[in-house]
Amino acid sequence: MTLSPTTLSPTARSTLGRNRGRAATDRAELHAVLDEGLVCHLGFVRDGAPVVLPTAYGRAGDTLYLHGSTGARYLAGDTLPCCVTVTHLDGIVHARSVMHFSMNYRSAVVHGVARKVTDPDERWQALRAIVEHLTPGAWDHARRPDRRELAATAVFALDLTEASVKRRTGPPVDDEADVLADRAWSGVVPIRTVRGAPEPAPDLPGHHDVPAHLGCTDHRNG
Amino acid sequence: MTLSPTTLSPTARSTLGRNRGRAATDRAELHAVLDEGLVCHLGFVRDGAPVVLPTAYGRAGDTLYLHGSTGARYLAGDTLPCCVTVTHLDGIVHARSVMHFSMNYRSAVVHGVARKVTDPDERWQALRAIVEHLTPGAWDHARRPDRRELAATAVFALDLTEASVKRRTGPPVDDEADVLADRAWSGVVPIRTVRGAPEPAPDLPGHHDVPAHLGCTDHRNG
Repeated sequence: MTLSPTTLSPTARSTLGRNRGRAATDRAELHAVLDEGLVCHLGFVRDGAPVVLPTAYGRAGDTLYLHGSTGARYLAGDTLPCCVTVTHLDGIVHARSVMHFSMNYRSAVVHGVARKVTDPDERWQALRAIVEHLTPGAWDHARRPDRRELAATAVFALDLTEASVKRRTGPPVDDEADVLADRAWSGVVPIRTVRGAPEPAPDLPGHHDVPAHLGCTDHRNG
Repeated sequence: MTLSPTTLSPTARSTLGRNRGRAATDRAELHAVLDEGLVCHLGFVRDGAPVVLPTAYGRAGDTLYLHGSTGARYLAGDTLPCCVTVTHLDGIVHARSVMHFSMNYRSAVVHGVARKVTDPDERWQALRAIVEHLTPGAWDHARRPDRRELAATAVFALDLTEASVKRRTGPPVDDEADVLADRAWSGVVPIRTVRGAPEPAPDLPGHHDVPAHLGCTDHRNG
């Protein structure tokens, strides 16, 4: 493990065992991968078995925030040992041989023990981070949480101390013999995640334009 | 739990505890969610702690296949207790109040104990399923695995017996008071995953058109 280029984390489990060339050493890239994502996959252990659920999240500095209903079983404790993974798929890598097929991607994996946030100010800032993560500007546009809503919401914080970033970019890596044989196409099919035109709710009065923070000023074009 | 509409699975852990209205009862929808995905998030337990990794997969009937290098630590055993989750994000739901913000999505969660596949015929069909899952037609186009490649590849099978599908669709669900107050925009920003024009590898001879199974016949337009 001493040759690993991963400097994001001091522990073995977030030090990549394979394909170390795909490890990013820059904490800024960890933040970038997390910030670009919309959904994370939250893993935890229940009755000895793994569970993986998609959920929203937000980031403030080196803290990742999760939230959910106080009725959710996995948020019932004061701490939650977990693993949070965010993945961006950037392309399907078509090689000349099927075993060299791959994906271009960026992923962040965070290990740790999330703690239940009880301080009212931190809870408020965490909920703000989660909403602003989805769409910057949304927190100032919509009605903020009231006392009843806050009471029904559990908030957890996970330090980004123990994390790794992995990525693959570029064209296929083919065996030389397959290149020389020249019998198959080789290249990348890019994958992109795009936001479409905003669709107003059926009960929204007609005088509302799409607000500027949604990147469009006239929903009637949507 | 007796009122749960989930009929996909007989066990408590794949019977949804909350938002049961989002549970799909149709096994065809489970297959559809899995087939449309490109990356799954594989959760397992290592040293008592959860780990979640993005990886490719394929499906044949009611079996989900995973593969990886025989050098990958988590594939070293004959079985792998795991949870496999596939999520499609379809939209960001902007409500009139931030606590009613949500996401439109479809997700499949599969629990079970994956078994290492040792039968050569099943291994071959599993690898075919994984490659064809990425891009139908790719298995017949590219060079198939040779003896050396097969020896370096571990294949695992996970039965789709214990699975659940969850989804949210449609506009925001706002509090009546927020609708009457009419002080914020409400609606959905759709999210789509799109494939771009194929990008030929730099070392691909110029006489290759993009093969038909990639949905484009001339890479020079790419």
